[in-house]
Amino acid sequence: MDRRDTDAADIGAEIMAHVAALARLSETPDGLTRRYLTPQHRQAAELILTWMREAGMAAELDPVGNVVGRYEGTDAAAPALLLGSHIDTVRDAGHFDGMLGVVTAIASVRRLHEAGERLRHPVVVIAFGDEEGVRFRSTLIGSRAVAGTLDPAVLEACDDDGISLAQALSDFGLDPSALAEAAWTPDRVAAFVEVHIEQGPVLERRRVPVGVVTSIAGAVRYDVEVTGMAGHAGTVPMALRRDALAGAAAAVLELERACAEGPDDLVGTVGMIAAHPGAVNVIPGAARFTMDLRAACDETLRQAEATILRRIGDLCAERGLRVDVRKTHTDSCCPCDGALQAALGKAITGEGYPVVSLASGAGHDAMAMADLAPVGMLFVRCCGGISHNPAEGIEPEDAEVATRILLRFMRGFVPAGARV
Amino acid sequence: MDRRDTDAADIGAEIMAHVAALARLSETPDGLTRRYLTPQHRQAAELILTWMREAGMAAELDPVGNVVGRYEGTDAAAPALLLGSHIDTVRDAGHFDGMLGVVTAIASVRRLHEAGERLRHPVVVIAFGDEEGVRFRSTLIGSRAVAGTLDPAVLEACDDDGISLAQALSDFGLDPSALAEAAWTPDRVAAFVEVHIEQGPVLERRRVPVGVVTSIAGAVRYDVEVTGMAGHAGTVPMALRRDALAGAAAAVLELERACAEGPDDLVGTVGMIAAHPGAVNVIPGAARFTMDLRAACDETLRQAEATILRRIGDLCAERGLRVDVRKTHTDSCCPCDGALQAALGKAITGEGYPVVSLASGAGHDAMAMADLAPVGMLFVRCCGGISHNPAEGIEPEDAEVATRILLRFMRGFVPAGARV
Repeated sequence: MDRRDTDAADIGAEIMAHVAALARLSETPDGLTRRYLTPQHRQAAELILTWMREAGMAAELDPVGNVVGRYEGTDAAAPALLLGSHIDTVRDAGHFDGMLGVVTAIASVRRLHEAGERLRHPVVVIAFGDEEGVRFRSTLIGSRAVAGTLDPAVLEACDDDGISLAQALSDFGLDPSALAEAAWTPDRVAAFVEVHIEQGPVLERRRVPVGVVTSIAGAVRYDVEVTGMAGHAGTVPMALRRDALAGAAAAVLELERACAEGPDDLVGTVGMIAAHPGAVNVIPGAARFTMDLRAACDETLRQAEATILRRIGDLCAERGLRVDVRKTHTDSCCPCDGALQAALGKAITGEGYPVVSLASGAGHDAMAMADLAPVGMLFVRCCGGISHNPAEGIEPEDAEVATRILLRFMRGFVPAGARV
Repeated sequence: MDRRDTDAADIGAEIMAHVAALARLSETPDGLTRRYLTPQHRQAAELILTWMREAGMAAELDPVGNVVGRYEGTDAAAPALLLGSHIDTVRDAGHFDGMLGVVTAIASVRRLHEAGERLRHPVVVIAFGDEEGVRFRSTLIGSRAVAGTLDPAVLEACDDDGISLAQALSDFGLDPSALAEAAWTPDRVAAFVEVHIEQGPVLERRRVPVGVVTSIAGAVRYDVEVTGMAGHAGTVPMALRRDALAGAAAAVLELERACAEGPDDLVGTVGMIAAHPGAVNVIPGAARFTMDLRAACDETLRQAEATILRRIGDLCAERGLRVDVRKTHTDSCCPCDGALQAALGKAITGEGYPVVSLASGAGHDAMAMADLAPVGMLFVRCCGGISHNPAEGIEPEDAEVATRILLRFMRGFVPAGARV
């Protein structure tokens, strides 16, 4: 067994052990729930501070509770390469969502440190305190704070116990009035690169351990209400019905069809539906449902939106139904930087794997960080495409491959616009 | 203005006034809710006892709280012609459902009484105490008791306050142990005829005030569960999804299509639906919905049931979804007696209206009474087909027409099998 193979196995084992150690820090005795600024967040942050220091980094908490570790480069004036992801979780979460990006970044830096190797650029690993937004119903607090785009009004947002973000920061030992100091200026940052589990089934289907993210999808959400005429399930002949749920069902299938016919990155989901008045023997007079539409490019999204709304309008009109749509959410697409995609692809090829590119349908810290610097993302294959679920998993080999690719990428990193 | 026109206007006004008087007896200050064996039921029963006695009937409560009024005939040995409907209501009910059948029957008998006219057969009007089943979740308690088909186990059924039917009967001043004495024997009954609002839009569309019911539809109900694979709304490409709600939506449309393609009396309704886990950004892993299928003849119902279940099975299989169906309810079709249909038709023609025949998609007291005697039903046009709703209404002229037709029918009544 040569040195490299031993180290590779070490990397996989180290990452799985670190992920498992973080997974034990849960607010709930069973499963994993770790919200922002809880005692379990504190414990996770302490563990990461320790790992960062062991990996040769100067590490501390920033004013919003992000853990920030710095591995100095050879050029004191060079802007930093930022790596990382988040360490908060959804309720009853998987172990890898967020955490994988933090532990692979630390593992990569550890390899540099153990080899006594310095890059030109400082490498900064950040474990963001909030991405999921579970506690204060405001996502990406950690990365928005770093990007300098966090609305200070969020300090007034309260959790389910009525504790404000400002209070929670104080309780965590931080100074809420120093929030703005978490922000980095663009001149100090060369790029942000995030490793994350795919949270979908594409890489598994393609039989590759990793993929390069082309774009974080834009999303729109709607609440749709269809209104017809309620009636007795036994007494109104089919031809005289204006059944709101039948119209909603047709709308669900139109959304599905429009997305299936569209580009591969276009997806649409109806996740919630209800019929009113909602009795087994009453023809629904109204039906409400949600629509979630995502695409890797804003133009695709806009076209799909227009098509779907038009088709739903048409089918409701044909059925004598009224339809009211209300847009509840808009996220623009966030394209990943082309040079970073190419560099990540080169690192993948360098490790002997084919380059698969795919869009991210989920939101990530990179979305907020794109306001600060060029961003890149490396997706890691996850078992069955399962995420936000205790069954979320990855293979240790894939963790090791991702770390080696990240390390190779870091070693070859040249900021955009820099002379090579 | 001749005598007849004056009387006709009187009948319409009398019926509307009686219906309005009953509508004021509500458990709730707004709207109409009058459940079985409540103080408001008692008040309604007292009012009806008064009206029956004014109309020349001997009237009393039977052992389940039905109000029973008897107008003697000329033949002491002749079996009775039973008329009536129910005086309990759903929550926030219309004013006519049930009550119209009681007040038109009393109004008809009143005309005989005022003219000093006796028929050969005694005429018995019954105001059933429970048809809707709101209080004890067991429908048709009143008519089943009269038909002798009420399961005594229902005495143990409890309302939302934990009061059993037995207790409620005692509180009402009745003897629960005398329940069986409410039953009539078939030899004492020649027929049961019920006047009822249509609760649907057919007569209004046909522009006729009344219709002859051919059959009370049979009904089956199902709970259906479709199981697929939950997933992140952003990360699973359309082609890799097993979206349970999309399958359920297709099933809703298949049910609608199968019923629309079937005979006119076949109707099918999905009244309740839910997606699980039920979040805007999660592909539903499961979807549950109810199906209510009705038809005027059992064979139609059986065929439709088989077709729909097969199509749903096929479409779920094509989508990689599992489907579990559970039958929760079965009511056989209850055909109305042919001779009674013909006699009602003759009375309609005699009053100068065309005979329109239609099936009843809703259940009625006649369904229970069919176990005791031949049954017939006369439907009265209702505004907009609306029922089980405060907006339920009929025109006074239609009430008057229905009463005149009922009176003409009674005068011509000959029991099935009797020598004319």
